[in-house]
Amino acid sequence: MSKPRNDDAHLVETRIDSEDVFRGRLLHVKRDTIALPDGATTTREFIVHPGAAMIIPRLRDGKLLFERQFRYPHNRVFIEFPAGKIDDGEDPLAAAKRELLEETGYVAARWSFVTRIHPVVSYSDEHIDIYLADDLTFEKSDLDDGEFIETFTASLHEALGWVDEGKVSDVKTMLGILLLARRGAGR
Amino acid sequence: MSKPRNDDAHLVETRIDSEDVFRGRLLHVKRDTIALPDGATTTREFIVHPGAAMIIPRLRDGKLLFERQFRYPHNRVFIEFPAGKIDDGEDPLAAAKRELLEETGYVAARWSFVTRIHPVVSYSDEHIDIYLADDLTFEKSDLDDGEFIETFTASLHEALGWVDEGKVSDVKTMLGILLLARRGAGR
Repeated sequence: MSKPRNDDAHLVETRIDSEDVFRGRLLHVKRDTIALPDGATTTREFIVHPGAAMIIPRLRDGKLLFERQFRYPHNRVFIEFPAGKIDDGEDPLAAAKRELLEETGYVAARWSFVTRIHPVVSYSDEHIDIYLADDLTFEKSDLDDGEFIETFTASLHEALGWVDEGKVSDVKTMLGILLLARRGAGR
Repeated sequence: MSKPRNDDAHLVETRIDSEDVFRGRLLHVKRDTIALPDGATTTREFIVHPGAAMIIPRLRDGKLLFERQFRYPHNRVFIEFPAGKIDDGEDPLAAAKRELLEETGYVAARWSFVTRIHPVVSYSDEHIDIYLADDLTFEKSDLDDGEFIETFTASLHEALGWVDEGKVSDVKTMLGILLLARRGAGR
């Protein structure tokens, strides 16, 4: 057992070759041939992802805006904060503003960056930038075609209870709730 | 804006067809044709994953045991709690015990289930079962062949600081730290 070190040479994997093994409508999978720290070679398969933005939307009364959305891989509905992929060349904050409007119909006057998280370090290069959105105004009520999302509001206290009970289990949403609570922002 | 409802019929997506589009050494990708709630059809691509177990290893002095591991998709080292995939037919707790020993050399006398999380609801069916492991004893010091992992210890207080600074950004590890703090277990 040793202390963390700045010199990571004994841990680093180096690319030898790279190929696209699947390019679908949503997923892009690469398989790279790599050299391990001891010089042996192996392969790494992973998803190439453009990154995403998540929004913690907080209404003027302090309540938080959540979504209920069906997630096909799990065959059930999850409680989530609004989020979405960053478009090609888009600024993460611009993506956050766009997704909040598209999915909930709200615009926010005040935005602040919370943190960047990595949901799947082993098989995707995805990162999610989390923003807190305040001073919300409702602007439109029509979802984009083919989006089936229900929105509802809850207090931070209620949301923390759902984390404790396992009723909220989507990692980005759990972290949004827990990090907001940690900021002592529980209005 | 409506309250959450038990009847999810207006959100549910139904499978029409399913095909394997990539089967690699690590990743298994499916593309299903589905019916949306309004009857329109589209496709969903996602990773089929066996599930994983993560361990929060707590030493007798209250310090937590972490790993530093190179994650190829991000081309850098991450600070993480020990974790790994569940083998075919394996019990999640058995997987947790196996991974803790394989990756750190420790065995624990006391185990408790913390919660189940879903890291990527949109494109993977992965879940991670989180366990707290107490009363650790060091048993062996040899990692499996081809595993390059460094271990080190830190207090919960230090770890919380790393979450706040963004030094820990792996979601499962962030949640392990934040949920442990929430349990008031900060010995």
